Amino acid sequence: MPSALVLIADGTEEMEFTITYDTFVRAGITTHSAYVPAAGAPSPGTSPVAKGSRGIRFLPDIVFDISQSGPDNYDVLVIPGGAPGAATISQNTDVQTLVRQYLDAKKYVGMICAGSLTALTSGLPKQPLTSHPSVKDQLTAQFEYAEEPVVISGNLVTTRGPGTSFPFALTLVEILCGVDKRKEVQDPMIFPIGTPW
Amino acid sequence: MPSALVLIADGTEEMEFTITYDTFVRAGITTHSAYVPAAGAPSPGTSPVAKGSRGIRFLPDIVFDISQSGPDNYDVLVIPGGAPGAATISQNTDVQTLVRQYLDAKKYVGMICAGSLTALTSGLPKQPLTSHPSVKDQLTAQFEYAEEPVVISGNLVTTRGPGTSFPFALTLVEILCGVDKRKEVQDPMIFPIGTPW
Repeated sequence: MPSALVLIADGTEEMEFTITYDTFVRAGITTHSAYVPAAGAPSPGTSPVAKGSRGIRFLPDIVFDISQSGPDNYDVLVIPGGAPGAATISQNTDVQTLVRQYLDAKKYVGMICAGSLTALTSGLPKQPLTSHPSVKDQLTAQFEYAEEPVVISGNLVTTRGPGTSFPFALTLVEILCGVDKRKEVQDPMIFPIGTPW
Repeated sequence: MPSALVLIADGTEEMEFTITYDTFVRAGITTHSAYVPAAGAPSPGTSPVAKGSRGIRFLPDIVFDISQSGPDNYDVLVIPGGAPGAATISQNTDVQTLVRQYLDAKKYVGMICAGSLTALTSGLPKQPLTSHPSVKDQLTAQFEYAEEPVVISGNLVTTRGPGTSFPFALTLVEILCGVDKRKEVQDPMIFPIGTPW
């Protein structure tokens, strides 16, 4: 069974986090959320609370620990947006190391919205990528910036915001579990007729 | 400023809860989540944890208390789906009382997915309504069952599932805050071109 690690921090965008995690669980992907403390913050203890960008409070499954978060542990690493949360996660050097390790190991990395800044901070090579428009200017010099809802570049999958999080999560389900599983997960969500994914 | 109470229980559908709450906050709606304990469960104390239908754990803002949850306190009451959570909420007699009070007071009630069962348990009069297809058969005799993504019947607004939660939440934003606010909230979510809402 595929497995996923979805990072979360104070200021993570709640919808991007929740849509990804929930959709993965529906697909049978073993999914853990891991709390990334802000730089310089005191130790979060074993039961941290992550307060999302719009105030929803989550109890993450685990505290982020690079020694248990590598490509031997999970098939995909996901970095949601929300400007403050994405700043914390993208500046974390252990996260940056993991992003490179996942891609080197041919595992998958997903980045949502401002989470795509992690491609920059991790020093990834020039390649197609998208993000929330609010951080586009920080990415255009180093990447082949695209404005498709979901951009697949090898094993790096990026997307734009809350409004593209469903097709993003479903794309990763298709990659990890196949097109039949995607359909099995997508149909009971009851998207309106004409929804373009 | 408009205000909203979004109910949550163990087994609430995480995406339906989160999309609604987050979208409301983006619109400037003062939004509280209130934990509804399962019938017969021990007192949840002052800091309950709600475990969603796919395992995401939330810290709700408050514990549900009918004396602080009426139409004098909030402009809209929202009941998410997720079969186990919707069972808990729809069977709660205080919730049923509030649903009738909100509608009598010309305040709004929103029901998502299996949350629409609360229209039945609250004894609402026959009117247009939708729900998740999985509970359609329980509703067709008592209501004018519709299959539109979002159904507005006076002050009762119902929707079908996670895939219709964005248009549901945005519809309530438009009702409470106006069409300009809806556009202001919707545009930065970056829905793909062709999204039918």
